[in-house]
Amino acid sequence: MATLPESHAAKLASLSLEEKASLTSGADFWNTKAVRGANVPAMLLTDGPHGVRRQAEGDDHVGLNASVPATCFPPAVALSSTWDPELLGRIGDALGKEARAGGVSVLLGPGINIKRSPLGGRNFEYLSEDPVLTGELGAALVRGIQSQGVGASLKHFAVNNQENDRLRVSADVDPRPLREIYLRGFQKVVTAAEPWTVMCSYNRINGVYASEDRWLLTDVLRGEWGFTGVVVSDWGAVNDRVKGLAAGLDLEMPAGSGATDAQIVEAVKGGTLDEAVLDRAVARVLKLADRTMPARDGGSAYDVDAHHELALEAARRSIVLLKNEGGFLPLDPKAAGSLAVIGEYARTPRYQGGGSSLVNPTRLENALDAIVAAASASVAFAPGYRPGEDAPDAELISEAAEAATAADTVILFLGSELESEGYDRTGIDLPAAHRALLAAVLDANPRTAVVLSNGGVVATEGWDERVPALLEGWLLGQAGGPATADVLFGRANPSGRLAETIPARLQDTPAYLDFPGELSHVRYGEGLFVGYRHYDSRELEVAYPFGHGLSYTTFAYENLALSADDGGITVSVDVTNTGGRGGHEVVQAYTSLPGSAFARPRRELKGFAVVRLEPGQTATTSIRLDRDDLAIYHPALGRWILEGGDYAVEVGASSRDLRQAAVVRLAGDDVTAPLSAESTLVEWLAHPAGGPALSAVLHEAAAAGSRFATLLAEPEGRALIGSFPLARLAAFPGSPLTREDIDRLAKGVEDAQ
Amino acid sequence: MATLPESHAAKLASLSLEEKASLTSGADFWNTKAVRGANVPAMLLTDGPHGVRRQAEGDDHVGLNASVPATCFPPAVALSSTWDPELLGRIGDALGKEARAGGVSVLLGPGINIKRSPLGGRNFEYLSEDPVLTGELGAALVRGIQSQGVGASLKHFAVNNQENDRLRVSADVDPRPLREIYLRGFQKVVTAAEPWTVMCSYNRINGVYASEDRWLLTDVLRGEWGFTGVVVSDWGAVNDRVKGLAAGLDLEMPAGSGATDAQIVEAVKGGTLDEAVLDRAVARVLKLADRTMPARDGGSAYDVDAHHELALEAARRSIVLLKNEGGFLPLDPKAAGSLAVIGEYARTPRYQGGGSSLVNPTRLENALDAIVAAASASVAFAPGYRPGEDAPDAELISEAAEAATAADTVILFLGSELESEGYDRTGIDLPAAHRALLAAVLDANPRTAVVLSNGGVVATEGWDERVPALLEGWLLGQAGGPATADVLFGRANPSGRLAETIPARLQDTPAYLDFPGELSHVRYGEGLFVGYRHYDSRELEVAYPFGHGLSYTTFAYENLALSADDGGITVSVDVTNTGGRGGHEVVQAYTSLPGSAFARPRRELKGFAVVRLEPGQTATTSIRLDRDDLAIYHPALGRWILEGGDYAVEVGASSRDLRQAAVVRLAGDDVTAPLSAESTLVEWLAHPAGGPALSAVLHEAAAAGSRFATLLAEPEGRALIGSFPLARLAAFPGSPLTREDIDRLAKGVEDAQ
Repeated sequence: MATLPESHAAKLASLSLEEKASLTSGADFWNTKAVRGANVPAMLLTDGPHGVRRQAEGDDHVGLNASVPATCFPPAVALSSTWDPELLGRIGDALGKEARAGGVSVLLGPGINIKRSPLGGRNFEYLSEDPVLTGELGAALVRGIQSQGVGASLKHFAVNNQENDRLRVSADVDPRPLREIYLRGFQKVVTAAEPWTVMCSYNRINGVYASEDRWLLTDVLRGEWGFTGVVVSDWGAVNDRVKGLAAGLDLEMPAGSGATDAQIVEAVKGGTLDEAVLDRAVARVLKLADRTMPARDGGSAYDVDAHHELALEAARRSIVLLKNEGGFLPLDPKAAGSLAVIGEYARTPRYQGGGSSLVNPTRLENALDAIVAAASASVAFAPGYRPGEDAPDAELISEAAEAATAADTVILFLGSELESEGYDRTGIDLPAAHRALLAAVLDANPRTAVVLSNGGVVATEGWDERVPALLEGWLLGQAGGPATADVLFGRANPSGRLAETIPARLQDTPAYLDFPGELSHVRYGEGLFVGYRHYDSRELEVAYPFGHGLSYTTFAYENLALSADDGGITVSVDVTNTGGRGGHEVVQAYTSLPGSAFARPRRELKGFAVVRLEPGQTATTSIRLDRDDLAIYHPALGRWILEGGDYAVEVGASSRDLRQAAVVRLAGDDVTAPLSAESTLVEWLAHPAGGPALSAVLHEAAAAGSRFATLLAEPEGRALIGSFPLARLAAFPGSPLTREDIDRLAKGVEDAQ
Repeated sequence: MATLPESHAAKLASLSLEEKASLTSGADFWNTKAVRGANVPAMLLTDGPHGVRRQAEGDDHVGLNASVPATCFPPAVALSSTWDPELLGRIGDALGKEARAGGVSVLLGPGINIKRSPLGGRNFEYLSEDPVLTGELGAALVRGIQSQGVGASLKHFAVNNQENDRLRVSADVDPRPLREIYLRGFQKVVTAAEPWTVMCSYNRINGVYASEDRWLLTDVLRGEWGFTGVVVSDWGAVNDRVKGLAAGLDLEMPAGSGATDAQIVEAVKGGTLDEAVLDRAVARVLKLADRTMPARDGGSAYDVDAHHELALEAARRSIVLLKNEGGFLPLDPKAAGSLAVIGEYARTPRYQGGGSSLVNPTRLENALDAIVAAASASVAFAPGYRPGEDAPDAELISEAAEAATAADTVILFLGSELESEGYDRTGIDLPAAHRALLAAVLDANPRTAVVLSNGGVVATEGWDERVPALLEGWLLGQAGGPATADVLFGRANPSGRLAETIPARLQDTPAYLDFPGELSHVRYGEGLFVGYRHYDSRELEVAYPFGHGLSYTTFAYENLALSADDGGITVSVDVTNTGGRGGHEVVQAYTSLPGSAFARPRRELKGFAVVRLEPGQTATTSIRLDRDDLAIYHPALGRWILEGGDYAVEVGASSRDLRQAAVVRLAGDDVTAPLSAESTLVEWLAHPAGGPALSAVLHEAAAAGSRFATLLAEPEGRALIGSFPLARLAAFPGSPLTREDIDRLAKGVEDAQ
């Protein structure tokens, strides 16, 4: 309440208990309640990580009913492949403008959950398998949205990494992965970009509903991270309203039956809920109303064409060139040879996912038209499959094979079936119809470039070796068609980089054996080892590694230099465009700490930079690796620590294409526990003060004839019972040490320090 | 106390509080206390899973001091490769005889912990990565030992799967793997063979010291499994004596300083410990003294030669023929060609591990002498390396290579360095000296059979493809030398089968990323997927699969038949020796339940049988798969259940050499939870009674104009919000259902059943 402005204090005082309770839940599906007498406005909240989904009518959260047209930008799965916070900031800004134009106070996004398994049904709405990349990109989106006076809603807080049983499942996760993988992105966005709202998720975390998790919503979010905004429930995430409010959930959405407002009133009156807790929640809602005032000014509009252009730019930057044998791409638009475009997705784009993020686009352009427009050559088209049908259609395939045979070059559009909120995928293979088409087309004409449209990764193992060029197009939003044509014909130089690994097999994925859990529990057994942290630590082959993406030009790395200070590490490296075209390079910096006392992945992304270079141009790129990102969470101390030591920094173009490496020493925090009777023989002997002190006692006892002391002093004895705490050794018959000896020694060591 | 015989009741009544307390801790390192006046004898307990380690003097638990000579049988790692309970029963019997001859009341073994990681330092003392195999073999050993009036001590109870930080580490493991993998073997031995003592382990389990874990020592061990014996602490495992006694730990070993007896007395006097708890522990100790009376009769002896012969038989049966290209083995003893025996382990056997299990053998025979004696040909020998030295010795290697060049055939002895209690291994590669020797010998003469001596698995990837024949000799005990020669020359037909997988790479092992943990916690993140359960479920390549082992003859499988009854499944299969020599086949039966509602490994061993067949002979082999072994532990219900369904039974010679398969239906337990407001839309709709009832309500509401009801009734809507509990849907604005509707529907369903 310390930050409560006077106007709010006055407003609060003027509100009845019932009015205050009413302000902490929705009026209907999308609006909060107004209190006219007190001049509290209603606020409109709408879905929309990659486009504003404002519905004309109110009762549908899940995207079955059409919404007011809005620009459909590329979903997060594509945007994250740009690795470009500047670009994402502009998209956030555009989203904010569109929201504001529609009178939307809060846009329900971005979604920044970690892609724990490629099967996650909502992965297309999320950014990455890596928390640092997630945090940087999420912060950029939040800043952009909020620059327009529209609140972002950072979601789904937290550890909501699957759709299966999402209303009940408990994500059972240990402290380090919880903090270092699943919360780190949220922490980065909250501390760096101050979102005005955070949306709590449906699921439970270690048995506690996110909507009732005081530790999560209050201790961590507000206490540790300094969050000052509103915590809003995911739609229907409230289990026990009073418990939720007390835990730190400010706003229940959508409207309940009214019963839960009455529960709040009753709890306050009955003394089971402190009215100050309610006041705090109301004050936060009032503050949100202040912050989002511009969104309700009614005077704004947005430039539909400019936003479409931005969607096009983003789509171009999102495409990842996975493979390009012998410079198969770009195609020469002036080439005389004939082209066959195959695959219904070229004509009917697969450009976004299903569920609450479904946008009704202002415009929709397909790739086929753009290819026809771009190419001088004749272009044939064959659909090859029908979206939604898994079984191969022999007629469509045979027609496609004929078109492929007749053409000089084939562009084949394949991809996944609809991914959506609400359910997870059951596999990562292309649909059977697409696999059959692919085989037939390649048999007919090996000069085939494949373009993928998919929200979750699809397996390429077993077929990509036959394909000279492979573009990962993800879901590219409403301008994905022309963006694809631009990349195919070289009018844009691809610069997307994988924000998630494409594994060789589903069986290799870290969560393969415990996703999505059972009996409403899912054990995050892989711990820290998510995504490339798993593949690289286990030295597993992957199809395409994290960070991978080709360009039509080439880049060289030189002159890596590291410098450390109290706040982290500064990496400097010279990057040169050594090819013939201008292009973007994503320079990635990974760290590791060989000899760490803690479990650590083989390498972890801690910083990156996007550079645009013309042919022959060199840029000295500076990347900052923040101390906070280098820190690990110490579960016994319950806080972040920086472990001291020689950090290896690897810099390159993917987690497996590391061009430069060097080592830098960081001092780190002193987290040595004091010696005690619970410390082991080995710990004592390794201690600079405790070791000599204990050895002296043992040698004295050995000299006096103690066989036990002799045993403890010998290397063999130490190997066998070195892991005994001294207290246990003291209890053995014939022990040369008493409990009192140990306490005296421990005190001596403590005093000496 | 219900089972307390009158004599004990009288004794108990005659004992003072101090005397009773004194009976629940040791007198010294190896003996319990006597109470002369009350005619309570002292009992001698000694180490000894594979041999009696009775020390002349008392203060050394870790094997540095020599003990009285005893037969060193093959350690558990080798014995388990026989898969033969009958043989292990005879070895248990022999161990019991030797113990009794030495006045030993309790032999501290067998050790039956699961081999979670090949790095476990004490794996050589444990049986398998599989709990059913472990349980069957462990029970056989216990029965054998106890047939002599000597108590076995089943250890280390429980979840003690590493040496690192073993006195403090908490094994953090979920209910299902805890029950189905780590406790199942203990459960089987306790219920089938009634060991007179169980030894609690040093470590903690989910944060609680095994020595103070009431749930483990009392609720599960005695309550669920019916254990009636004494729980003894591992030597030094007591953390808090009073807490331990209250939890179910009866006997602290070794002697403490006397302070802990006083703590017991004080706690009883102070009212913090119920004297009845102490009485129960004392009664159990008295009962143990009764049971072990034969061990103190002083009149027994054992036949040293006969036990050596038994050790030889066991060693022969333990050897696993991993590879035998083109019938390279057996060697013809009458062949004229020259032999080179290379490797110091041929002359100086590596036959047991270090630590508390270290036996001072009655005799020790090496392989070199046995080979020289067996072969007609000339035999050259070169040591090739010095045990304990990792770095290759160029001179020894060059000498070995010369011997290899000069010989027609080479027998190369390689293996691991000493494994021991007290510390884990850090890798699974052969020592560098052995790898260098191997390469040089193979370059000199590819006609090389390799014999391995090792307690934990060693990697064969990268070299075994160059070797025509490979024998896994494990640690074979004091008669391993002649046993090896017998197998090499075909005087014994190898019949060992791997009781643990030999992985292709350490990086592939399930616990690779979380072994041995950090900060005194180790998360068993792989859950159920230990050993072949991991490799088979992830479809990973392995070097040699679980259950694998070749023979000099061949076996065919036919006529698999399954029949189910309330107690389990009976498997019948005809096995025929189709080769030219008599031999043993280990017939293995694995089950799986495709479509299970629970996480399940791809296959699990549930039964096996050893058959001895002469050439051409057929045996109809019957294997019983017990309902208890087919059951899974339901963590929400807190009990074992048998899931109903079509069980696939695969029968064959290894987990990856399955010759016959069939399906059998088991009815299973009904564990369906009743429908409630917390049940999801999908669960309701799938219910035979609830589905139609709910659908009727929804259709009515839809007909009355509810758009929400229409949405719920459509497949798309169900896919998106099917995982919502009805209570949550009822809270949505416009919901066609009220909470009252749901409760009414649920009651209707319940009443109808």
